[in-house]
Amino acid sequence: MLMAMSSARPEMPPPPRRSFASDNAAGAHPRVLEALAAANTGHALAYGDDDWTRRCAAGFGELFDADVTVRLVFNGTGANVVALAAALGALPGPHHAVICTSQAHIAVDETGAPERVLGTKLLGLEAPDGKLTPAHLDAVRHLRGDQHHVQPGVVSITQATELGTLYAIEEIGALCDAAHADGMYVHLDGARIANATAALGADRAALRAFTVDAGVDVVSFGGTKNGLLGGEAVVFLEPSLAVGSAYLRKQVTQLPSKMRYLAAQFEAVLADDLWIETARHANAMAAELHDRLRHLDGLDPGPPPQVNSLFPTLPADVLDRLRHWSFFWEWDPARHQARWMTAWDTTLEDIERFVAGVTHALQR
Amino acid sequence: MLMAMSSARPEMPPPPRRSFASDNAAGAHPRVLEALAAANTGHALAYGDDDWTRRCAAGFGELFDADVTVRLVFNGTGANVVALAAALGALPGPHHAVICTSQAHIAVDETGAPERVLGTKLLGLEAPDGKLTPAHLDAVRHLRGDQHHVQPGVVSITQATELGTLYAIEEIGALCDAAHADGMYVHLDGARIANATAALGADRAALRAFTVDAGVDVVSFGGTKNGLLGGEAVVFLEPSLAVGSAYLRKQVTQLPSKMRYLAAQFEAVLADDLWIETARHANAMAAELHDRLRHLDGLDPGPPPQVNSLFPTLPADVLDRLRHWSFFWEWDPARHQARWMTAWDTTLEDIERFVAGVTHALQR
Amino acid sequence: MLMAMSSARPEMPPPPRRSFASDNAAGAHPRVLEALAAANTGHALAYGDDDWTRRCAAGFGELFDADVTVRLVFNGTGANVVALAAALGALPGPHHAVICTSQAHIAVDETGAPERVLGTKLLGLEAPDGKLTPAHLDAVRHLRGDQHHVQPGVVSITQATELGTLYAIEEIGALCDAAHADGMYVHLDGARIANATAALGADRAALRAFTVDAGVDVVSFGGTKNGLLGGEAVVFLEPSLAVGSAYLRKQVTQLPSKMRYLAAQFEAVLADDLWIETARHANAMAAELHDRLRHLDGLDPGPPPQVNSLFPTLPADVLDRLRHWSFFWEWDPARHQARWMTAWDTTLEDIERFVAGVTHALQR
Amino acid sequence: MLMAMSSARPEMPPPPRRSFASDNAAGAHPRVLEALAAANTGHALAYGDDDWTRRCAAGFGELFDADVTVRLVFNGTGANVVALAAALGALPGPHHAVICTSQAHIAVDETGAPERVLGTKLLGLEAPDGKLTPAHLDAVRHLRGDQHHVQPGVVSITQATELGTLYAIEEIGALCDAAHADGMYVHLDGARIANATAALGADRAALRAFTVDAGVDVVSFGGTKNGLLGGEAVVFLEPSLAVGSAYLRKQVTQLPSKMRYLAAQFEAVLADDLWIETARHANAMAAELHDRLRHLDGLDPGPPPQVNSLFPTLPADVLDRLRHWSFFWEWDPARHQARWMTAWDTTLEDIERFVAGVTHALQR
Repeated sequence: MLMAMSSARPEMPPPPRRSFASDNAAGAHPRVLEALAAANTGHALAYGDDDWTRRCAAGFGELFDADVTVRLVFNGTGANVVALAAALGALPGPHHAVICTSQAHIAVDETGAPERVLGTKLLGLEAPDGKLTPAHLDAVRHLRGDQHHVQPGVVSITQATELGTLYAIEEIGALCDAAHADGMYVHLDGARIANATAALGADRAALRAFTVDAGVDVVSFGGTKNGLLGGEAVVFLEPSLAVGSAYLRKQVTQLPSKMRYLAAQFEAVLADDLWIETARHANAMAAELHDRLRHLDGLDPGPPPQVNSLFPTLPADVLDRLRHWSFFWEWDPARHQARWMTAWDTTLEDIERFVAGVTHALQR
Repeated sequence: MLMAMSSARPEMPPPPRRSFASDNAAGAHPRVLEALAAANTGHALAYGDDDWTRRCAAGFGELFDADVTVRLVFNGTGANVVALAAALGALPGPHHAVICTSQAHIAVDETGAPERVLGTKLLGLEAPDGKLTPAHLDAVRHLRGDQHHVQPGVVSITQATELGTLYAIEEIGALCDAAHADGMYVHLDGARIANATAALGADRAALRAFTVDAGVDVVSFGGTKNGLLGGEAVVFLEPSLAVGSAYLRKQVTQLPSKMRYLAAQFEAVLADDLWIETARHANAMAAELHDRLRHLDGLDPGPPPQVNSLFPTLPADVLDRLRHWSFFWEWDPARHQARWMTAWDTTLEDIERFVAGVTHALQR
Repeated sequence: MLMAMSSARPEMPPPPRRSFASDNAAGAHPRVLEALAAANTGHALAYGDDDWTRRCAAGFGELFDADVTVRLVFNGTGANVVALAAALGALPGPHHAVICTSQAHIAVDETGAPERVLGTKLLGLEAPDGKLTPAHLDAVRHLRGDQHHVQPGVVSITQATELGTLYAIEEIGALCDAAHADGMYVHLDGARIANATAALGADRAALRAFTVDAGVDVVSFGGTKNGLLGGEAVVFLEPSLAVGSAYLRKQVTQLPSKMRYLAAQFEAVLADDLWIETARHANAMAAELHDRLRHLDGLDPGPPPQVNSLFPTLPADVLDRLRHWSFFWEWDPARHQARWMTAWDTTLEDIERFVAGVTHALQR
Repeated sequence: MLMAMSSARPEMPPPPRRSFASDNAAGAHPRVLEALAAANTGHALAYGDDDWTRRCAAGFGELFDADVTVRLVFNGTGANVVALAAALGALPGPHHAVICTSQAHIAVDETGAPERVLGTKLLGLEAPDGKLTPAHLDAVRHLRGDQHHVQPGVVSITQATELGTLYAIEEIGALCDAAHADGMYVHLDGARIANATAALGADRAALRAFTVDAGVDVVSFGGTKNGLLGGEAVVFLEPSLAVGSAYLRKQVTQLPSKMRYLAAQFEAVLADDLWIETARHANAMAAELHDRLRHLDGLDPGPPPQVNSLFPTLPADVLDRLRHWSFFWEWDPARHQARWMTAWDTTLEDIERFVAGVTHALQR
């Protein structure tokens, strides 16, 4: 399906076959569909008591080289809620809060799911680059010990961030150390953990370096944005947080019935590190797009992408015209800033066409 | 995958290829997989802004012959929580309760999801046949007007029930009338609505008769147990309940990202009323199984199945042996009662093998 | 203020000056008011950082002869919610449930506060005498280990019970042992703990025997029904449950601002064990009332009261007439059963008048 | 009780008898205690079915000159939670959020009670003077219509604000108009509504002007900080919000049992507008304190108080010494800023002593 909408000006070149709206507009990787078909053989007990789920769990153990507990869930909000519920539930009492950035997905883009489902306050702190630092923890330390204030209990970071930036490995390590010193747990929202892994070394060692080795306690491991039909995995690196996680997954509505179909998808992308390869490709396409745009007059492409998103600034009318030609979202309407994302299936031809369209629209 | 577990006694005949454990142990219908493959073409905007979701919504409108709002969700617990949240949210204040039977899935088998996510009390009333009646509403009327008690606000029924029984069309009509007279909304948990439809006429008129025509306000329309990989639809028949349902679906973690893959599955089974045909087959297989078992000595097959489940009683050791041969769950261990379910893919050969195994085990 | 309502038949004798409707219809003990006046001297820091609260906390430590943590709260529902929040919060994860009787105040008379505030399911079990036993814990043991079910985490008992019955000391001990063996905590709703103490020995040893010595983990220690203007104390006997209780008290809206006025009330009644004496009097008045009624024709006074409530059965018209003469509540309208309660301030003259009225109404 | 703590330097003059820590450190007004004693006569039905509560409700009707519904509650957090629960409950669905300032009491000082009890997100917006404006509503309008975001449903303002500032009458009117135009309700947290009333005209007309006339829908009417032992009133000005408020008050643990004792306190202060007089006195004492401090060297008294609080800045060591002499809280430790509050019982002598101490400490 083409994302292109009817253009008011017929002279625009043909739009790209795949949009730059979001990586969740992409479809599923062929190997994911093959795995689904292969899993569709006869009966298997529901709710995870099946061979695919067992193999998938083992696969995550190998991936992190650790004794992890994996809970497959449906979507990113579900993964985050399960992870936070487990971390908060490991702290005594219901009065703990979650520290995150003010732009965090859990704070802004989940329609208040953490508050509704967990009854928990999120402390959204200003972070212009989308990244928390130990200084942020210092900034809320005055809340501690005062019965009138929620008590910070969990630090939630996003890697890659909602702003397309990356934590360096040592930044996550320092944050985990600081959080643990304050008795807090660390959650990593990895809706785009694959893109981060690809950017930070593109192998399993890179993943381990900024998660299990850095001290992260629980990870929302994204699959949907990286070639699955749909599916995320909550990976508990700190074993004590996994206690009761099966129950709470069900309680927050995230227990899949025919779980083999989720597990099979993850099996497919974990095999041969396909998940890293697809993310590496998406990242490379974003770099390519940036490279081809940065010399155009009338467009500020923003900084070179760290993962798979660009945040360019364009004249308002150009932006508007391009959105009608090949849809994407405005990121900051006040600044005429767009977000252009690449996906696992973005092709060079898509980029060529998109750049041609941008060029055309800028010339007017 | 065979469900058979290693038997301690080699003399048992070969187990059936498909188990009788549950209809959610069955796989996906081939046409569902075909639809997924067909939907896997390029990009489509996420979160329901795609052609498959639009066609699926239109399909449900035709199915119910009404101006319905459809919210696709991941699983049955999610569907029930979304439906109940919408119905409760349409009532002023947070103090309303949900009336259901004490065996209702929402009360027993969802790990407290309604209480956790909605903060709502469930009033589980005794109903030996799994069915609420207007008399049940009378039984809680004394709660009304007393500030110390939750106020009944929603009636939730299950069709077919958790006990494999069916509400007659007029029974649902009478219950809806009574509920509405008390200012309450009616939710129908239709995890097995297909089996109920198949049993009550096997056409769309049958479905409409016990839902929209009877006065039901919102339906959890099951797909997972009837040939989907996974997916349910919350269908709002009362338009006022649908207000805000998009937001609350997201808030309770049930918004699918690449929604086309859910919509495509439903499209596939709604086409040519495949969903009724598959359920009709499952029901017929249960009837066949009952028919072949009812003359066996040493086994009480229970009443003829109304839909796709039998609740037979067997000697404890026979039951135990059979469970190791081809797994199923005990329903009531105290009474040595099992639950045997058929599915859309149960074959006559499966039944022949299963009956042969039961016969063998009973002879000892 | 007289509770009497205008009677349709002028011939009834004068009603009692104090009603038999409930012990919360009684006023405050004079020593409580004196203590309030004495505490009203100048400034004291709010939220418990005052001498009255410190003395009150010490007083409870002496009372239980244990290293208790005390959190003063406003009302019974608040006390129960704080106690349950603390106990549930000490268990890992949000999926634990509270076991209670189906008539428990928390289950029936708190408008769903535990579900709303804590998001927790209450498992209300049938108990004709209002008392849980280890057999009740056995009855829910099948829930354990199944991810589809809430996991029993807290046992909540009421002493004296909502039915006016009493747990024997050893019954509570056995229940606590069973609960702890299953990894659960025990909460005692002591809205009428004074009446229970008075009935079971009428000294501090009696209190300790059925609470701290029996193994109870946290107590809702009632004051309102026993001579306070209003005020309850959550007493943590198991220290680990008290962690975070200051925060959660505030979070569930139960932190008093000028706490000295709550503390002073408790100080007044703890002094010289006034709280036991007032309850002993109420119990004695109930016994006296029963004694005077049990020979009347046409009235079944029910069993002799164990604490301060009678549950008599009367002809419907007599019951109705009496309620209009001196208001009380029907307990079970279907059985024409009333509840008559005595209070700390019930006098012999009140009883004489009330019995005279009952006698008159029965003669017709 | 004196708030003075042992001073390390004996040369400080005697501290004031009443502290400047907070208005909730003050005791109860003598007429409040008299009213309690007068209400302590015999029996009265609990939970508000008594003459005091009826008279109190009528008194609030006269006060606002409107058909108000009044729900008495225990404390400020309780009042806010009841008010917000009612306003949110009047909106369809659970996905609405509360707009407030980032310094709002509900956002910062209630240990996450709104999130826990209501499951609702608070959108805390920056407001350097503690006041929301229609521009703040504009700033969140982009959230509307997007299923990924909570939908603003209630605007909560504080009058007088947490920063000691005041909304002008027309400012509240404009905000209410803007909120209503967006389909939102307006809640006014009036923990210090008396001080605001005193400052804006010191009569009932002033109160009405910035509440019912301005379009406020529901008010948390504070009593505790203005001479009560403890007690607040939720006053529903918009009748539709009051539906169900009795139930939800109980559900959120805020239903007083012996309600006459709360009602009698309010009756006492509403009589002869005592509540305005006491607040007027507190405000005047703050003005007096400011007046005597503003010429002192080494101290920045901040702007003249609009109500009863000063926010002076002092050298760190002086601030520290003064806090040990007569306790008060630091407001902003980074800036060496204190908060000094007057109360209904602050005397000129207290001010003289306090100013003498400040003067002494500044001289060093």
